[in-house]
Amino acid sequence: MRATMDALVSLAKRRGFIFPGSEIYGGLANTWDYGPLGAQMKHNIKRAWWRHFIEQNPYNVGLDSAILMNRQVWVASGHVENFHDPMIDCRQCKSRFRADKLIEEAAAARGEEVVVDGLPFAEMEKLVDQYQIVCPDCGAQDFTGIRQFNMMFKTYQGVTEDASNEVYLRPETAQGIFVNFKNVQRTMRRKLPFGIGQFGKSFRNEITPGNFTFRTREFEQMELEFFCAPDEDMKWFAYWRQYCYDWLVSLGLRTENLRFRDHEKEQLSHYSKATTDIEYQFPFGWGELLGVADRTDYDLRAHATSSGENMTVQEEGQEPFIPYCIEPAIGADRLFLAIFADAYDEEEVGENDTRVVLRLHPKLAPYQAAVFPLSKKLGERAEALYRDLAKLYSVDYDEAGSIGKRYRRHDEIGTPFCITYDFESETDHAVTIRHRDSMEQERVPIANVEVWLADHIGKSAPW
Amino acid sequence: MRATMDALVSLAKRRGFIFPGSEIYGGLANTWDYGPLGAQMKHNIKRAWWRHFIEQNPYNVGLDSAILMNRQVWVASGHVENFHDPMIDCRQCKSRFRADKLIEEAAAARGEEVVVDGLPFAEMEKLVDQYQIVCPDCGAQDFTGIRQFNMMFKTYQGVTEDASNEVYLRPETAQGIFVNFKNVQRTMRRKLPFGIGQFGKSFRNEITPGNFTFRTREFEQMELEFFCAPDEDMKWFAYWRQYCYDWLVSLGLRTENLRFRDHEKEQLSHYSKATTDIEYQFPFGWGELLGVADRTDYDLRAHATSSGENMTVQEEGQEPFIPYCIEPAIGADRLFLAIFADAYDEEEVGENDTRVVLRLHPKLAPYQAAVFPLSKKLGERAEALYRDLAKLYSVDYDEAGSIGKRYRRHDEIGTPFCITYDFESETDHAVTIRHRDSMEQERVPIANVEVWLADHIGKSAPW
Repeated sequence: MRATMDALVSLAKRRGFIFPGSEIYGGLANTWDYGPLGAQMKHNIKRAWWRHFIEQNPYNVGLDSAILMNRQVWVASGHVENFHDPMIDCRQCKSRFRADKLIEEAAAARGEEVVVDGLPFAEMEKLVDQYQIVCPDCGAQDFTGIRQFNMMFKTYQGVTEDASNEVYLRPETAQGIFVNFKNVQRTMRRKLPFGIGQFGKSFRNEITPGNFTFRTREFEQMELEFFCAPDEDMKWFAYWRQYCYDWLVSLGLRTENLRFRDHEKEQLSHYSKATTDIEYQFPFGWGELLGVADRTDYDLRAHATSSGENMTVQEEGQEPFIPYCIEPAIGADRLFLAIFADAYDEEEVGENDTRVVLRLHPKLAPYQAAVFPLSKKLGERAEALYRDLAKLYSVDYDEAGSIGKRYRRHDEIGTPFCITYDFESETDHAVTIRHRDSMEQERVPIANVEVWLADHIGKSAPW
Repeated sequence: MRATMDALVSLAKRRGFIFPGSEIYGGLANTWDYGPLGAQMKHNIKRAWWRHFIEQNPYNVGLDSAILMNRQVWVASGHVENFHDPMIDCRQCKSRFRADKLIEEAAAARGEEVVVDGLPFAEMEKLVDQYQIVCPDCGAQDFTGIRQFNMMFKTYQGVTEDASNEVYLRPETAQGIFVNFKNVQRTMRRKLPFGIGQFGKSFRNEITPGNFTFRTREFEQMELEFFCAPDEDMKWFAYWRQYCYDWLVSLGLRTENLRFRDHEKEQLSHYSKATTDIEYQFPFGWGELLGVADRTDYDLRAHATSSGENMTVQEEGQEPFIPYCIEPAIGADRLFLAIFADAYDEEEVGENDTRVVLRLHPKLAPYQAAVFPLSKKLGERAEALYRDLAKLYSVDYDEAGSIGKRYRRHDEIGTPFCITYDFESETDHAVTIRHRDSMEQERVPIANVEVWLADHIGKSAPW
């Protein structure tokens, strides 16, 4: 049975995947903290991305640029000028909303579809009137006009709060890559095509964050900027579109919950020639999980103009040119949520008995294995096995309650293999390994457990 | 030969370890971006910490809390009130300095030692007079009085910039752990002693950042908060002091460059009962690398009082009590810098010939191995070997220039093993593996390379 959002949020909190941020102080508007199991799983996801997009892809190299950058970066990229949401206020209760979202919801409630993205504010205001939209909080039909709201968080670095010290928290990791383009190309002696990727925190002061970790003001991106010759952009666009899709499927996401959505011309960002989203069917509906965009030479050209830096490359027998850029970008928190939702299952396992089981890919699970001593008397040797396996994997050691209860606890957090050391183990030097998904058990000699796990998971710690 | 700071900064930039942040826009006050090789190495360092402090330590679990937290967290922790640096201005040139640093430097120049930490401002002002300190920028002896400067970066979340929306960028990751103490303890069913650790970015608006990546406003911490019974704190303090030291040595840091510095009573923070720094001998002198502090029950008690949350634990036959906390905390950027400096060597390798070699621990090196085809004609099979190894490790494929040049390039970036596929390989199905440190070479059958690397590095990708 598929999960509801309530079931996911509840499991996440109950078992230490995700807690509300600053909870003891009443929280802080849709911030979330990853608990012990969630942190483990999120690290696994990020490492999976790094392995697949950076270390194992022969074209790409990594980067880790700072969150705080020179303000000119955001002037050149267009974020100071254009990174706005249309904001509208209720005159009665003073609540603030995104006008585009209000209009889309009102249209959807009537079974209509409108494309609000990119409409002038005057047009949006007409639609607010036309749909007779009321305030979701107080029900009044009394809105202000629509104004721009820049979504970059602003702060001051240095000891005086004046304009010259104004800096922004980056709203995307991509610009950290563009401004380092020449440094990377030169030091890594790269020729086209090649990519530069990184993951890290970004910040957007969203007017209406929500849907659990789907839209948060602080979030983590995994972005690759792939540079190629201008006339090869569509070839590489197709390559990365497929590469990303295949990767998501390799992580265990079910194909029936994934779909492509190619952006129509009028939906494209001003810098983009083509964009495809890969959407995931979340419990609250389809939502963007990953985007592949052809950013053309927009960003490198903007920084070349603004900084005076030469952003061209030269290939044999050609004039110097500014490369085109294909960007596959994915949110680590959204991918976490998709994987969590996709893995969730409630399964009948007998009369009037169900179990919750997270069918996570073994490499993404918080624990790859758990070791149980059948009795505390067997603790010494069971612990020795645990310590051996912990050198290679993330392993739990659990000695509380019946074996059946321990199985259920580990089903719920996705541990693929539970290893029980029992009284027979003392004489046959073997253990029982139980499979999470099939619940089948097999007896494996202790001397073979490491090889057995390598065959079922991979040779060691995630990716 | 040990590295100078100039040599390190230059190598870091030339080979893609660390670039000046926002460089094409003239930089941004001591921010730095990790280039492809630096990002790889920093990930390896963080992963080493996570493996050793979280996954492989039976007491501890991980966490990944948000950077933006409810403002009350910082009120309760004392940061709003106390997280200040003493700031002093030159009346002539308007430059701003940390008064304590000016005094310490002036004292050091006279061969004296003063403890400025914790002195009242009036006392510090007397010392400024007494040492006849002049402005380092313009030479004037004309300072303002000393004032407090709060080092937390402030921003506004939500759509209005008023006090109720004021939030700070966290100045330490520790408080994210304290506010989640009960959530973690409950969901992970932990009894004392146990620890909660995380790594992540923190931000401090330092008046005088500097020494390359040693002191930056944006930096990454790796912090463990270890909770124990109040009467066991000194036992665990000793345990973690040693655990940390042993870990640093296991990463390859030379013991002659490490020393303990136990804080005197008068140097202790108001919340601390005991603190030991492990200092590293950087090229610019000894500096704090890692700190182990006995924070007592200060933080949990402060949050209990401020939030009303019950922060006690109860053990059999005892009254509920608030645990004590031992904190081993280390900066990822400082550790990177220490490892980078420690590994650097210039070695004579013949008449009038020297090589630069980074003697990095194989698991910390950006590449664990590199594969060279002796000739481009051999590319196909050499690439097949590269692809096989890249499934397990971070591996480079390098076909440019003579083998000797390739060795030198990889010496400089610390690649421990270079694997050459030559014409003989076609018939003897073996390759030459060359050791970075000894420069010795051995012939290894291709079928055995994976096992050979596992013996010399470990079974797969770092930790």
